[in-house]
Amino acid sequence: MALVVQKYGGTSMGSIERIKNVAKRVAKTYDAGNDMIVVVSAMSGETNKLVALANEMCEFPDNSEYDVLVASGEQVSIALLSICLKSMGYKAKSYHGWQVPIVTDSSYSKARIEKIDDANIRADLKDGSIVVLAGFQGVDAQNRITTLGRGGSDTSAVAIAAALNADVCEIFTDVDGVYTTDPNICSDARKVEKISYDEMLELASLGAKVLQIRSVEFAKKYNVDIHVRSSFNENMGTMVTKEDKDMEAVLVSGIAYDKNETKIAVMRVPDKPGIAAKILSPLSDANISVDMIVQNVSDEGYTDFTFTVTKADFKKALVITKESAAAVDAKEVLTDENISKISVVGVGMRSHAGVATKMFETLAKEGINIQMISTSEIKVSVVVDAKYTELAVRVLHDAFGLADGVAQA
Amino acid sequence: MALVVQKYGGTSMGSIERIKNVAKRVAKTYDAGNDMIVVVSAMSGETNKLVALANEMCEFPDNSEYDVLVASGEQVSIALLSICLKSMGYKAKSYHGWQVPIVTDSSYSKARIEKIDDANIRADLKDGSIVVLAGFQGVDAQNRITTLGRGGSDTSAVAIAAALNADVCEIFTDVDGVYTTDPNICSDARKVEKISYDEMLELASLGAKVLQIRSVEFAKKYNVDIHVRSSFNENMGTMVTKEDKDMEAVLVSGIAYDKNETKIAVMRVPDKPGIAAKILSPLSDANISVDMIVQNVSDEGYTDFTFTVTKADFKKALVITKESAAAVDAKEVLTDENISKISVVGVGMRSHAGVATKMFETLAKEGINIQMISTSEIKVSVVVDAKYTELAVRVLHDAFGLADGVAQA
Repeated sequence: MALVVQKYGGTSMGSIERIKNVAKRVAKTYDAGNDMIVVVSAMSGETNKLVALANEMCEFPDNSEYDVLVASGEQVSIALLSICLKSMGYKAKSYHGWQVPIVTDSSYSKARIEKIDDANIRADLKDGSIVVLAGFQGVDAQNRITTLGRGGSDTSAVAIAAALNADVCEIFTDVDGVYTTDPNICSDARKVEKISYDEMLELASLGAKVLQIRSVEFAKKYNVDIHVRSSFNENMGTMVTKEDKDMEAVLVSGIAYDKNETKIAVMRVPDKPGIAAKILSPLSDANISVDMIVQNVSDEGYTDFTFTVTKADFKKALVITKESAAAVDAKEVLTDENISKISVVGVGMRSHAGVATKMFETLAKEGINIQMISTSEIKVSVVVDAKYTELAVRVLHDAFGLADGVAQA
Repeated sequence: MALVVQKYGGTSMGSIERIKNVAKRVAKTYDAGNDMIVVVSAMSGETNKLVALANEMCEFPDNSEYDVLVASGEQVSIALLSICLKSMGYKAKSYHGWQVPIVTDSSYSKARIEKIDDANIRADLKDGSIVVLAGFQGVDAQNRITTLGRGGSDTSAVAIAAALNADVCEIFTDVDGVYTTDPNICSDARKVEKISYDEMLELASLGAKVLQIRSVEFAKKYNVDIHVRSSFNENMGTMVTKEDKDMEAVLVSGIAYDKNETKIAVMRVPDKPGIAAKILSPLSDANISVDMIVQNVSDEGYTDFTFTVTKADFKKALVITKESAAAVDAKEVLTDENISKISVVGVGMRSHAGVATKMFETLAKEGINIQMISTSEIKVSVVVDAKYTELAVRVLHDAFGLADGVAQA
């Protein structure tokens, strides 16, 4: 008898009919003799609707109360799935984050899990109940509701799998698995059978929406194998797992893009030590993550300082940056909301040179101007004008030979 | 400095604009130097939407999970109002039932409050926070969410007012107060300035939708004055309070109607001791409240046994009654879903005869047939065909002289 964690996303839970299908799938695995924990997201569209209400109320909704608001979507899902399972004759019990409890820090809307108490859930599993857990939700030390950020249900699933030492963590979604790039953009994108945690981390952080990045960090840390698969068919999906020899033989495993970033440039800053900290600290104090950061070479004692933040953080970040810019005597603050980040990812890069060069050449050949560059051990990212996104993805997918599964350096 | 409890219903919380108005009203009372607890319902329509989802899922949704589902509506309201108050610069903090905690029994969807721990709320009030409490919600000893039944937010408000010994409990609603009857039916219905707990109890239990019946029971038990008033204007509403001499001078204080009941008749039951219990116990075991009960005089050793239940309980009650009817060898079970209960209410009745007679005569004059009769110390109720509802209310309102405020016996 195994302990199986299954996570169903918003699309899989998108209607009463679909929830009934989820229940059948859960029941099948339970009937095969497994203990079951099912983690669910809000019905598709619900979270967006709640976010829209908050934004209609005021420009910067209080973070703590925002979490109370958006956590209600998952509450509806756990109740409906539990009602369905019980009407089918199964023992089932819904859990909010606070009922487990899944204890997090107090970084509302981006909370990090600190501790999971498994006693209540273990008792219910022992009793034969199917545990239906609200994804996305936690509770902090002050007994306030927290949420784990968009896509946080993935993290809930992996964390609960780690805490209870589950045998499998299956993430059911509306796609068949992880692809070499977005199949909507590139018709010859190929499903990957196996991918390393590090590659998946880069892909997730670069905008491939299959898994929330923290869920992969969690999986890597606690060595949880994640099986990403479709809730609409029985096909095998993609295993996200420890790196092995096969993976290293592939130079580039995927092309990712991210249209969710915006660029803020602080122009003509006096180039003195500590400038970067003066601009960035107020942002991190406000719990805003800065992604790419570029500082130009000094020109007559002045420099330009450019960085990217998500669209969600943009308004708040701009207000803060304008204050810091004034404080450091910068000339002005420029912004660009129409950018896209394109990245090539692969653990094979570690031992092969030339990936960046090939990437830049491929883009140049199409006349696509590169605005910012950032690299890590296993990825190269560039920022380009958003209108080139699809073109850039397609030519890079082709240049790195991803369609036929043979990498070319 | 007073402690004020204000409760806003679904219509008052029905849109972002309306929630902003609620916030302004709350702020005004707070700025006048009062401590504030605000109890809110789900945005209008939301609870119905959630109930519809549950009913779409299956015929008899599990009660415990049903409560998890419907409690989410209030969660949205407390978050939005807190976000609004905070954006206006006020200290505010949302509370779920479980965060207070408001401890109830485990009668899911009809839970009764057993204990309110006031320590957390007192600390926040002392800290200058406006406490925004989800109405309708509780939590049981097993840490499962419970709800107090439709309209339960009124009870939440009165209970919290009693627990914290508040100076005022204002129930804001979409009407100006308690009327002698429904103004939608009877254009000369008159607003009542003051009404006793007992009269309000009868009116509430008889279908006057202004206050949930349990809230009035609570108010009576703990002697909480309730001020029912409109959230759309500044008019004085109706005080629900202890009985006094003025009230006794009025023979009939209101006419109520209830279209929410259905009739179930168990026909030709062998008339032996214990029959009533055999039919009614399985219903109360299933937590179904039976309202009116009539048993006919025995005819050749057989009797008919008729009772009413709410429309919500009808399907379940019918299944159970058919089983009990078979067990006691009844001939058949008949039902009528098109009935209406019409009641005249007034503490003055205690010392005056003739109210029932006048009621029956008035209805007879219009050719309205009376199907069932039930009486209490301060009310007379009859069941009639639903199509006569409006006519019956109007002629009774007129016969008892309610429009001009002079009772006639």
